[in-house]
Amino acid sequence: MSITDTTLNSNAEYARSFKLGHLPMPPAQHLAILACMDARLTVEQFLGLKTGDAHIIRNAGGIATDDALRSLIISHHLLGTQEIMVINHTDCGMVTFKDEELKTRLAKETGKKTQSPARFHAFTDVERNVREQIQTIKGHPWLSGIPVRGFVYDVKSGKLQEVHASETVSR
Amino acid sequence: MSITDTTLNSNAEYARSFKLGHLPMPPAQHLAILACMDARLTVEQFLGLKTGDAHIIRNAGGIATDDALRSLIISHHLLGTQEIMVINHTDCGMVTFKDEELKTRLAKETGKKTQSPARFHAFTDVERNVREQIQTIKGHPWLSGIPVRGFVYDVKSGKLQEVHASETVSR
Repeated sequence: MSITDTTLNSNAEYARSFKLGHLPMPPAQHLAILACMDARLTVEQFLGLKTGDAHIIRNAGGIATDDALRSLIISHHLLGTQEIMVINHTDCGMVTFKDEELKTRLAKETGKKTQSPARFHAFTDVERNVREQIQTIKGHPWLSGIPVRGFVYDVKSGKLQEVHASETVSR
Repeated sequence: MSITDTTLNSNAEYARSFKLGHLPMPPAQHLAILACMDARLTVEQFLGLKTGDAHIIRNAGGIATDDALRSLIISHHLLGTQEIMVINHTDCGMVTFKDEELKTRLAKETGKKTQSPARFHAFTDVERNVREQIQTIKGHPWLSGIPVRGFVYDVKSGKLQEVHASETVSR
């Protein structure tokens, strides 16, 4: 049985005792989270959030890409979220490669070149990366003024550590 | 107290009984999921997935944007995932507006115009939207050959319904 089929069996069981059909569309806690897709981050669980509490946006690295900004703008302007958390983590796969190396490797392995994605957003310093994402979000003309705080989740301890703004971020 | 501070208190409690520090980076179930950011979708929970099992990629609508493709390519080629699930849902906020109307409204409300995001990816038919995302993923030269299945999650019942391929999808 494929893992997809296994999850469908689990979902049938979940639905049998489901009692949350009354929840409204806007997040109850007015919170939007941008986090990495990493399998070790069970975001709602490690933040104590319940179903219906927060928008959860996730991508490789927890990067404030144009697409993440799109989601945050919809979250804030259409569905009323008022706080943003950016969550990166220790031992992230994004520090294990360089964008150009990966592109070259994939073109070679598949025999096909492509312009999309334009970047993979590999990084080297997780705290600096968090600061850069905060700056990108705060710098967007349609998101300015919303509180944004950044964190690194430690996959060994389950603990979040806040990343405070430094004087300057140099790229 | 802000909701962000509340989640930090919850995280401190979570970390006190944390026992998953041994989990490796690659997802144990070799699964990648692309789902909507909606607050009512507690993805891991309604699929019966445990911490460490799957990459979870989420954005507004559960759209296979360039950024979601970036994440899926990293997930498959660097971290070994072998199946992809696309999950949209009933009562999605993305059917409540039109891209151009939202852009006009935000430019007016904020007094600022911007070219990013280029699109908001509003849609009208959730099943057709799921089919289009599957086609986009299957059509990417660096993701072809990976099994991709699509679903609509019913926020009233907690049930997933599979969306099967139709003859053709016309845009």
